[in-house]
Amino acid sequence: MDPIRLLYPLRTYLIVSGTLENPNVMTADWVCPLSFNPPMVGVAISKKRYTYNLVSKFKEFVISVPSMDLLDDVWKAGTVSGKNVDKKKLLSFTFFKSKRVSVPSIKECVANLECKVVNEIEIGDHVWFVGKIVASNFDKKTFKNAIPKGEFILHLAFNNFTTNKKEIKSL
Amino acid sequence: MDPIRLLYPLRTYLIVSGTLENPNVMTADWVCPLSFNPPMVGVAISKKRYTYNLVSKFKEFVISVPSMDLLDDVWKAGTVSGKNVDKKKLLSFTFFKSKRVSVPSIKECVANLECKVVNEIEIGDHVWFVGKIVASNFDKKTFKNAIPKGEFILHLAFNNFTTNKKEIKSL
Repeated sequence: MDPIRLLYPLRTYLIVSGTLENPNVMTADWVCPLSFNPPMVGVAISKKRYTYNLVSKFKEFVISVPSMDLLDDVWKAGTVSGKNVDKKKLLSFTFFKSKRVSVPSIKECVANLECKVVNEIEIGDHVWFVGKIVASNFDKKTFKNAIPKGEFILHLAFNNFTTNKKEIKSL
Repeated sequence: MDPIRLLYPLRTYLIVSGTLENPNVMTADWVCPLSFNPPMVGVAISKKRYTYNLVSKFKEFVISVPSMDLLDDVWKAGTVSGKNVDKKKLLSFTFFKSKRVSVPSIKECVANLECKVVNEIEIGDHVWFVGKIVASNFDKKTFKNAIPKGEFILHLAFNNFTTNKKEIKSL
């Protein structure tokens, strides 16, 4: 048993790279907050991924937060490479201009976090990109009072997913 | 709205540090796989935490994976500092000897990942500890066929938690 699997289920996010004219999208489970102030986040990307080339070149990325209703497109984004296919045509996402980076955001997602790369570290078989969050947008209903209310994508393993319950347990 | 909150809900894990005789436990949402081969994982810890001192000193930690039934102890571990209180007495966990590190594992958790620190990077208001997973143990029923079957802890915000559904959507 691969020990990394013991940390699953993990949330699945979308990493947008490239430009508004030529955006690329991959899925990523390996996304993690790193700092509240300044707000910083990390994402692990394999060098084999087309997204690696784009993030390494432009030094910017957007983390888009899909809810469960986008699962089919999320799966496509994660299993087809942008090297061979135009993801803008493949996916039913609406890309729009971000506020502070040239990488676009995704309208159908409940949040978009605009990031500028401040560090890039090779760790094992992935590259760890450290990004400073320079702007964001989000759905006010989903994140009312900072308590997420949607149904989000949880990756179990391989092609198996689930989601969170809606009940809240307050301690 | 703090942009980091847009990445929530996130899984909550336990970070064990110290020794079998004097273990400490904190909760951590900011845990992330970094590499499959070799298996590596990162955890962000604030310098204010007692766990920071212990991990920085011993260069080892264990990530223990609690399921939802341990939520009360998980909450205590995250809100009381080991600086002032003996967590071994506070928590109803059974600590046992790990295989490859001096930091103990927790019997009640569904998995324990034994890690040796290979890098320590200050990023914003936290320190990012990069660990190599040198051994692990897990509950065979929970992780049968590498597809997690338990009810895990998802942190929404502040004192609000939820869990995952048990239904699996296979694509």
